[in-house]
Order: sequence, then C-alpha cells, then structure tokens
Amino acid sequence: MSTLIFGHKNPDTDTITAAIAYAEYQKQLGNTDVEAVALGTPNEETQFALDFFKVAAPRVIETAANETDHVMLVDHNEAQQSVSDRAKVTIDAVVDHHRVAAFETAMPLFMRLEPIGSADSILFKMFKEKGFKISATLAGLLASGLISDTLLLKSPTTTEDDKQIFAELQEIAGIDLSDYGMKMLKAGTNLAARSDQDIIDGDAKSFEMGGKTVRIDQVNTVDLEDIYARQDNIVAAMQAEKDAEGYDLFLVVATDILNSNSVGFALGETAPLEAAFNEKIDAQGRLALPGVVSRKKQIVPVLTTAFEK
Amino acid sequence: MSTLIFGHKNPDTDTITAAIAYAEYQKQLGNTDVEAVALGTPNEETQFALDFFKVAAPRVIETAANETDHVMLVDHNEAQQSVSDRAKVTIDAVVDHHRVAAFETAMPLFMRLEPIGSADSILFKMFKEKGFKISATLAGLLASGLISDTLLLKSPTTTEDDKQIFAELQEIAGIDLSDYGMKMLKAGTNLAARSDQDIIDGDAKSFEMGGKTVRIDQVNTVDLEDIYARQDNIVAAMQAEKDAEGYDLFLVVATDILNSNSVGFALGETAPLEAAFNEKIDAQGRLALPGVVSRKKQIVPVLTTAFEK
Repeated sequence: MSTLIFGHKNPDTDTITAAIAYAEYQKQLGNTDVEAVALGTPNEETQFALDFFKVAAPRVIETAANETDHVMLVDHNEAQQSVSDRAKVTIDAVVDHHRVAAFETAMPLFMRLEPIGSADSILFKMFKEKGFKISATLAGLLASGLISDTLLLKSPTTTEDDKQIFAELQEIAGIDLSDYGMKMLKAGTNLAARSDQDIIDGDAKSFEMGGKTVRIDQVNTVDLEDIYARQDNIVAAMQAEKDAEGYDLFLVVATDILNSNSVGFALGETAPLEAAFNEKIDAQGRLALPGVVSRKKQIVPVLTTAFEK
Repeated sequence: MSTLIFGHKNPDTDTITAAIAYAEYQKQLGNTDVEAVALGTPNEETQFALDFFKVAAPRVIETAANETDHVMLVDHNEAQQSVSDRAKVTIDAVVDHHRVAAFETAMPLFMRLEPIGSADSILFKMFKEKGFKISATLAGLLASGLISDTLLLKSPTTTEDDKQIFAELQEIAGIDLSDYGMKMLKAGTNLAARSDQDIIDGDAKSFEMGGKTVRIDQVNTVDLEDIYARQDNIVAAMQAEKDAEGYDLFLVVATDILNSNSVGFALGETAPLEAAFNEKIDAQGRLALPGVVSRKKQIVPVLTTAFEK
C-alpha cells in the first residue's frame, strides 16, 4: 500500500513535477514505497515538459482511500483543491508555497512551506540540504515548475532565491532554460486546441473567502485577442458551470504572458472584485487587470480582504 | 516596530526557549528587528532553566497588534492557543511540532513543522542546515525544551532524531544534560508552591474536537499522592473554571515523570474520554492512564477521534 504523493486538482506544471520530485526525494530518504500520482491529466504546457524530458505522466487518481491510508501533498493544502476523500486518509507531509486554509490534521506532520515562486523551488532546497542527487532530468522538471509558476521569473512571486535556484538548475540541466522555458510557456497557450469548458476549468481553483465560494481560473495567452474572439462562448460556459456548482463568484483571468497583463471575465458577486482592484467591469464585460499575473499574490489576498469586509 | 516571536499561552519550557532560539536564528539570518516575547510568565521548570543558563525571561505580552503588524509563531499554531488578537496581524512564520488546526492565513508564509519531540529539535536542525553558530548557552536552552517535552527522551513522542540532537547538544553545551535535565524536570514538580488554580491552568490548552471545546491540562509530579491529597480542591477549582469558560470537557492529567504513568480528573462530557481509553473513571473520581505521558501523541488524537464519532 504505497503512500501517494500528489498536487492539486486541475494540475499545472509545478504540481505535477513537484509530485514526481517529492517521490524521488522520499526514495532517497529511504521511503521507497511511495508513488507520485495526479488529480488530473497534464495540460499542454505540462505535457510539453514531460515529453521534452522523456518522463511519463503520473497515474491519475479520483480518490485515495480506496488504495492507501497515507498521502503527501505538494503545491496545495486547501481541502477543496485536494483529493475528494482526503478526510479518510492521514496526511504525512505537505510541501507548498500557498497560503494555509481549510487544512487540519489530527496528528503532527511534516510541513515545509515557504513564500517562494514554486513548490519545486522548495524541493530543490530540500534536496540540497540533504545532499541528495539531482539528475539532469530532475533538474529540468524542477525548472519547468519554477518557470511555469513564475512566468520565467517575471511574476511578482519570484524571489531572489528563485533566481539563484534557476541558475543552479541551469547548470545541472545543461540546457538553455530560458529558451526552453519560453517554448514550454507558449505550448500552454495553444487556445485553438482547447474547448471553452477546458479554458474555464483547466487551471481553476476554488477558494473560501468570507464564507463565500470563489472560483478563479487563469489562462495564459500570447495574444488577448484570441480570448476576446471567444468571449461570448467562454462567458456562456462560465454561466452554466456557475449555475451548476453554485459559486458565489466565478472569475476567469486571461494573462498575456509576453506583456505581463491580465483581463478578467466575472459572473456573480462582482462588487467585491471591483472594489478589490478599484476598477469597474467595462461595457465589453472585461475587467482590466494591468500588471496582474499572479493569482496567488495579486488576486487572492486582495479579493479575500474585499470579501471579508 | 519589531516582529514579535512567541509560543503558546501558558508557556512551557519548549515554547519559551524556542522563541528565544528562533529570534537568534532570525538575527543570524539578517532579520535583526525581531523580539522573543511570551504569552505568560515562565513556570518553575522554565525559570530553573533560564536561571541555570543566566538568560532573562522574555517580556510578557497580552496582545500583539498594539505594537506590531508581523509575528512569528513557535511551538503552536491553533488560534485558541495563540495571542488573542492574532487575526489582526500577519503571521510570517511558524516553527512547530503539533497537529495543524484552527490555522489559516491570507498570504503564503514560512512554515516548518515536523513530527518530532520538541520545537527546539526543529530549530536545532534549522541552525545546522544554515551553518549558523550555536553558543553553549543556546545549546543548553534548546536541550531544556527537548528535555521538557520528551521527559528526558522517555516520552513516546521521542524520535531517533531527538536522541541524536540531544547527543549533539550535549557536546556543545559542555555539561551533563541528563543530570541537568532531571533537576530541571523536578523543579517543575514542586506542587506545594502552586495554587490549585495554577495547577489546573499552568499547562492547559484548549482544543476543538468535533465542534466541542476540550480543555486539557497536564501537571508533572514525582509522586501522584501529592495530587491525590489535593484532589477535592483541584476538582472544585476545575468545576468553577469549567462553569465560567463553558468547556464541554475539562481534563487535568497528572503525570508521574519517574514511572511514566498518568491519572486524569475529568468534568463534563466524560463518555468520549472513557471510550477513547476504554477505561472507566473509578469510584475515587480518577481515570487511570497507564503508560500515558504525552498529551499530543497519546491523548489528543484518540480523544479527537472519540469526539468526532
């Protein structure tokens, strides 16, 4: 009965690579009976990274308790972002770089959280502290998560440590990570191949804010016009999902990764959203979010504050 | 406006020494504007340790927001064990070895939790990982917290890491830590000098279990007869506090540190307590807890399970 290691629902590159890396860390620690799994299939960006480094995608699980008593979490801690039957298993460890909410345990556990660009950045530190081996492939995977979460070190979540880690990973990986990283990010912006439903759900996370359920999705693009051209259909899909799931606010953020700007579409309780950014939704149904690229640092905190008022 | 570093209410030796040690760690990290404070005055055991190593007791604070926006927590995370106005300040960091509950933040933070004997054990690891200097005095303080929380490495919370850390601290401190440790523990068992109210409150913590408020106090002794002789007065004091505070269950555990056994006095919803230990409160109003010395490992988890049924 292996201990399962996984990241959040709607997995992104950091979550998938962090699960793989933490399983490798546990093995080097002597815990050989662990398996990296995922709560969904890789998105196009992540698949690009896995293909590039010739690593198989982790097995997808729907529930955990049917096959194990013990799990370890990476890149998330909030219950609604985790496996649906988490309450039935023991959480032995968490490695994460998000706020803490909707998380509790009956027993002491291992937790390693830092306010840093990616979960992979923390894992890199943990490998180094123990003197564990990092293969070129593992370095490439860790860099992929770091690049994805920080938009190639351009997001405001990027710390000095992240830049140093990127340089060290560059050495180990032995490839031009900046060039690779831009290709990987662009692979994730191929919107033509994605359905409206996939766009509004692909990177979505639910948050509790002042007793309300706020759903926030983020989609990267190299041209916001690609999103505008599909806006009516995207908003219709959002409305259907909001009605079905009962979100109080549903926000889809389209981020221009080349110019580091975002635009939001929102349905539901939009007043706290407009208050949070001191910006009105315009006549075209768009909320300008200039300079915003990080959900975690630039959206969730201010929106939480606005909802708790 | 210094960042305040503190442990839990009703501070014990691990909580006080961990706050002092983490402030020293932050200073070596370059964060010089930090101050170790405490949510209460040291108990007799802790005062023995501070006197022995000639270290002043941390300043006692009642609230934090009146003097700072930022705090760091050691040896606890649950809101009801923390400073009363915690919701008004930002938690930048947590170093702890307890379960996680009643804890959430709006922003990512630094957290370092391990299932290990003491918060001081984790801090020792952190100093070592960074190559930071540990003075003989600091080693003595770290050892004091480790000795206190593990009853000189005899509690079931003691890990192999703790034993190794104890040996390394012995080297740095340059004194016989086993001999010192027994003297320190005995200093904490001088019940004659303590009021009934102090005995039921000195080490007490409140826990949320299945929606109920459970108050658990632990008092160390070298002779349970000293407790039995005062049982009627102790229980009367418990009843008065339970009525005033509205606990659903109030449990005072007296632990014989020489023989590693405990006996409990309980008021309120005692059925889950008896179920948890499969043991009835006897005709003398005592619940036998053979082999139990750790509230965290041997009481809180089973009692939480019993209350959640």
